[in-house]
Amino acid sequence: MSAKTAQKASGKQAQPRSRAAKPAPARTPGFGRIPVTGISPVVEEGDYPAKAVVDELIPIRATVFREGHDAVNATVVLVNPRGREIRVGMHAVEPWGLDPWEAWVRLDKEGLWHFRIEGWSDPWATWHHNAIAKLDAGQDLQLVCLEGQHLIERTLPNLKRQADAKALKSFSAALDPAKNVEELEKTINDPRLASIMGQFGPRDLVSPTKSYPIQVERKRALYASWYEFFPRSVGAWFDESTGRWHSGTFDGCHQRLEEIAQMGFDVVYLPPIHPIGHSFRKGKNNTLNAGPADPGSPWAIGNEDGGHDAVNPDLGDFDSFDRFVEKAKSLGMEVALDFALQCSPDHPWVKEHPEWFTTRVDGTIAYAENPPKKYQDIYPINFDNDPDGIFKEVVRILELWMAHGVKIFRVDNPHTKALSFWSRLMTLFRKKHPEVIFFAEAFTRPAMMHSLAKLGFQQSYTYFVWREHQWDIQQYMTELTTQTDSFFRPNFFVNTPDINPFYLHSGNQAAFAIRAILAATLSPAWGVYSGFELFEHEPLGPDREEYLNSEKYEYRPRDYNAQPNLNVLIGKLNAIRKHHPALQQLRQFRFHNTTNERILAYSKVDGDDCILVVCSLNPEYTEEGQVNVDLPSLGMGWDDVYQVEDRLTGNLFHWGANNFVRLTPDKPAHIFRVTKN
Amino acid sequence: MSAKTAQKASGKQAQPRSRAAKPAPARTPGFGRIPVTGISPVVEEGDYPAKAVVDELIPIRATVFREGHDAVNATVVLVNPRGREIRVGMHAVEPWGLDPWEAWVRLDKEGLWHFRIEGWSDPWATWHHNAIAKLDAGQDLQLVCLEGQHLIERTLPNLKRQADAKALKSFSAALDPAKNVEELEKTINDPRLASIMGQFGPRDLVSPTKSYPIQVERKRALYASWYEFFPRSVGAWFDESTGRWHSGTFDGCHQRLEEIAQMGFDVVYLPPIHPIGHSFRKGKNNTLNAGPADPGSPWAIGNEDGGHDAVNPDLGDFDSFDRFVEKAKSLGMEVALDFALQCSPDHPWVKEHPEWFTTRVDGTIAYAENPPKKYQDIYPINFDNDPDGIFKEVVRILELWMAHGVKIFRVDNPHTKALSFWSRLMTLFRKKHPEVIFFAEAFTRPAMMHSLAKLGFQQSYTYFVWREHQWDIQQYMTELTTQTDSFFRPNFFVNTPDINPFYLHSGNQAAFAIRAILAATLSPAWGVYSGFELFEHEPLGPDREEYLNSEKYEYRPRDYNAQPNLNVLIGKLNAIRKHHPALQQLRQFRFHNTTNERILAYSKVDGDDCILVVCSLNPEYTEEGQVNVDLPSLGMGWDDVYQVEDRLTGNLFHWGANNFVRLTPDKPAHIFRVTKN
Repeated sequence: MSAKTAQKASGKQAQPRSRAAKPAPARTPGFGRIPVTGISPVVEEGDYPAKAVVDELIPIRATVFREGHDAVNATVVLVNPRGREIRVGMHAVEPWGLDPWEAWVRLDKEGLWHFRIEGWSDPWATWHHNAIAKLDAGQDLQLVCLEGQHLIERTLPNLKRQADAKALKSFSAALDPAKNVEELEKTINDPRLASIMGQFGPRDLVSPTKSYPIQVERKRALYASWYEFFPRSVGAWFDESTGRWHSGTFDGCHQRLEEIAQMGFDVVYLPPIHPIGHSFRKGKNNTLNAGPADPGSPWAIGNEDGGHDAVNPDLGDFDSFDRFVEKAKSLGMEVALDFALQCSPDHPWVKEHPEWFTTRVDGTIAYAENPPKKYQDIYPINFDNDPDGIFKEVVRILELWMAHGVKIFRVDNPHTKALSFWSRLMTLFRKKHPEVIFFAEAFTRPAMMHSLAKLGFQQSYTYFVWREHQWDIQQYMTELTTQTDSFFRPNFFVNTPDINPFYLHSGNQAAFAIRAILAATLSPAWGVYSGFELFEHEPLGPDREEYLNSEKYEYRPRDYNAQPNLNVLIGKLNAIRKHHPALQQLRQFRFHNTTNERILAYSKVDGDDCILVVCSLNPEYTEEGQVNVDLPSLGMGWDDVYQVEDRLTGNLFHWGANNFVRLTPDKPAHIFRVTKN
Repeated sequence: MSAKTAQKASGKQAQPRSRAAKPAPARTPGFGRIPVTGISPVVEEGDYPAKAVVDELIPIRATVFREGHDAVNATVVLVNPRGREIRVGMHAVEPWGLDPWEAWVRLDKEGLWHFRIEGWSDPWATWHHNAIAKLDAGQDLQLVCLEGQHLIERTLPNLKRQADAKALKSFSAALDPAKNVEELEKTINDPRLASIMGQFGPRDLVSPTKSYPIQVERKRALYASWYEFFPRSVGAWFDESTGRWHSGTFDGCHQRLEEIAQMGFDVVYLPPIHPIGHSFRKGKNNTLNAGPADPGSPWAIGNEDGGHDAVNPDLGDFDSFDRFVEKAKSLGMEVALDFALQCSPDHPWVKEHPEWFTTRVDGTIAYAENPPKKYQDIYPINFDNDPDGIFKEVVRILELWMAHGVKIFRVDNPHTKALSFWSRLMTLFRKKHPEVIFFAEAFTRPAMMHSLAKLGFQQSYTYFVWREHQWDIQQYMTELTTQTDSFFRPNFFVNTPDINPFYLHSGNQAAFAIRAILAATLSPAWGVYSGFELFEHEPLGPDREEYLNSEKYEYRPRDYNAQPNLNVLIGKLNAIRKHHPALQQLRQFRFHNTTNERILAYSKVDGDDCILVVCSLNPEYTEEGQVNVDLPSLGMGWDDVYQVEDRLTGNLFHWGANNFVRLTPDKPAHIFRVTKN
């Protein structure tokens, strides 16, 4: 969006005028008297709500036009969760020839909102346009004045303040055809007259569209800094005398939580904390022959100690989990749990509810496979045999963990489960537990990822780890900020236990810094899997995007205070994010041209807050070039000089439209706060 | 579309299998068990029907995908106007990563059709994929055979022919784990097995989408060659003794109709034939001071002789109009009337129904104006004072002319009238008079032009006259053939009484030939306003796109047999169009690369009919270059040699992928019939 529009939105347009609540007017299908089409945000024809968080500035857009020459106008009618209507004026934007209109609005309450758009005929704007044209030509003075007075007459009953009525009456008297053209034009163009008539003037042929839903959620659904770690690794130690490992525990993680909080994270995400299956347990590096010392993959859920509703005794019990959650909370952090809807063959459900799995024609329960690959340690759930039963159990489990303070679930591989199941679950939770955030771990094709987001997942993993160049980051961010922004909220993880990005395999510390800076400033939500700050990078093989000695299959105690360490930079990034609303949102984003394709420049704006990031994409060498800032898009003129303060270093510069930068592996980026003069 | 797809469509896919009619299954909003999204053709969320003509090959498209690894499949369920269901299999197309599926179908009856898409789980395809993978790895032979037999068992009840049942049972027996892998693979891959299972195999988790409408109209709505002329000019003569003109008449036009039919036109379109107003009548070249000899603009409708329901006595009466229509019909042509919903101040409605106009605050009736311009000879209709009254009258008038054999109306300036009015009218006519074709004369911005088409106008004027270059013709045709094809049917007029294109101002005969060739071969509907064939080109001024001495304001008798004359080329073009179904449709169209930006190359395909046009865009000089034909898109290989026959000259050539052409102002184009070897 342009800064011009943003100003409008944060000015009069975004301060909605209220009118008394009333039921949405009836309409027949098809175009209304004043047509409004191409409405957004609309998800799947309105079957699912579009997304916003509380007070997020979001665009409502439509194509608005009408027959003939008379003036058209449009209003967004927002209906808040309590049914109260709030009206916000729309305005025409470029490119005019395509008739796009928009309004930027902030919805100030959580819950299910609705909006419709009213197209209407604007007789005052029509009259004003015609009056000026006719006065310029010396035409029809008598009629022009008469018509203006008539419109003022129609407006008087709408006024709320005596002063406005008095002013209008005096304007009406001034529309006297005996006066000369200059005097009349002065009256017609009086800003006070424009203001009163713009607010209270007649609206003819008001034509409402259908009504479409917007779900307004808590801010954490959009803006979050995630840290992922395996509690079992924290303080784990190998007893050489017994040849066995001693697992880390929840209670042993409190110090670690403090360190994570110091880095500024607000969500701590734990891989599954449930009992781990024994059958076909995976050994180190995903091997098939686990030894007695191998703890197994936490995603092989369930054994004789319980399933999704149990705590792995190695980690502690519900009490120690509660203490862990409480400790995180005291540090300003929420705990997110992994929700992996699959079972080990030892899961209690296998005996209690064999109907929740697939029984093959030979009577055996089907393990996961992608022939010829077999995953015999995992039984996938079958959602079609007893959909109500499995649904009820899933709700029970989620509510169990909610009772222990968990309001965020990172859902493992949602794309391998039925979408209709998720749709039902999200619909229930939007109503019953709207505070819960589900984060979709779907690394798959766009249709599936988008559909999971549309049906309600509040946050989604993305392709960010595979976007390394100026062109592909620009392409992907353009999609995320302008095409899918009404339903898909990205969380840019820089690494995960499953993804050791090729970009980091060199171990080059600047590469880690660049990825952290990009993730933390491009996306309102970003995430780090522990070890990243220690520059862990050894891959399973040169062409493998997985970690060697992956923590998924073994204990990995770490010295988190080791040097070198990225924890200071990460802490700075999260602090900058906390301080700058511009970085906490996705929609007011744009790239700026650079003369060097290995330098990326982009700005984010929210209200008066404006951040300009200039980041090298080359961790190996120094990059120089010019950054050509599109100043009008930031509400400045091409010749303006303005102050930028690098929030990473505190350095101040004066910038203009074209600016030289030199970025080194040591200091690969500027994160500028832009201060307009 | 690719030729590969077209073949599928004209093969098995386009020969729908029928099943017994039943009501569309119930569904809840949102994604079904097997999700299907991004469906087309869908116009305004289904508020308006998409368009097709009888037997036109049209694409049904959607994004189809599912969870996990199992195979997905999809079927279009077409419901014909009588409620009978016809099922057509969809197939995945490129780019695979975005999960697009499609089916090309021909709807064989006029009327309102509906379609939904059923996504479904395909257990046979899943099994087949897994079986091959497992056999290759020597895995699970026993289970693979058992599962295959089970699926065959499930299929047997679906079969209709004994022979199929017998074959399936024998395949089942051959799925014997005791056999070796080669034998088993041969069985699994048997084409007969694939064919029977593909047709009758089990369909699980069948998930229907919403139902969307498609209006199937008569072919003339898509494919038509229009000729426009003013009957009053045909045989008109000036009596020097009286200083008055004698108007041409309907009865005097019969010979002219024969000449028009000889040029191969099938629609004869007449400007308004009603009595013409006297008040503020326009004189020659749109001047304000008409003399007694000036016949006035036919668009200033109505005087003491009547309004829209009357015939201008100068032209004849209803009987002579009927003879005119009958004569046209005997020549294989339809008569299209202008429907201009506006009045002269002398129109009977002005006295009888002042409520159908706008009364200004000074009590006068509003004439048309675009301040400071005034059009005092025209009173626009007001559609808001008495919407039911004006609607009823409009229906009465249209039905009156229908009773006189008119089934096509060219609607003047529909974009200056309320869309809700047109929407209501089109909805009524789709039900009551589905044979009527309305042709929208809206030269305005895209939103309005598209919306008029969406709400039901069967044909639309276009921007063609302003598309003169390779790049802009390519851009516009891509929009028309791939973006708006489900609702917007273009009619490429080469000129109109209002538009004397700059491209023709030189009078260069090659320029006229090029425009005729482009219009007649790019668009299934094209049109010529009389005088074009005689190379009339004198503009009102050098920067004016209007004709000097426009026929709108005066009589213009012509010698239609004068030389030079484009009538022979036009006749050839229309004959080629009649002979080639490829040229009668819009959707199977593509451009081919040329090495010269002043040479345009494109192909059109329908079934086995394939036309390849190569046309110079330079009427002044010879153009040479290479045409690089995308042979795979035409169902050929890159190395294929094929025969092309120039339908303009009869010349035969052998062409390959890359071909040299030399086009001269004398022979500016090839219209090749492509014959594959």
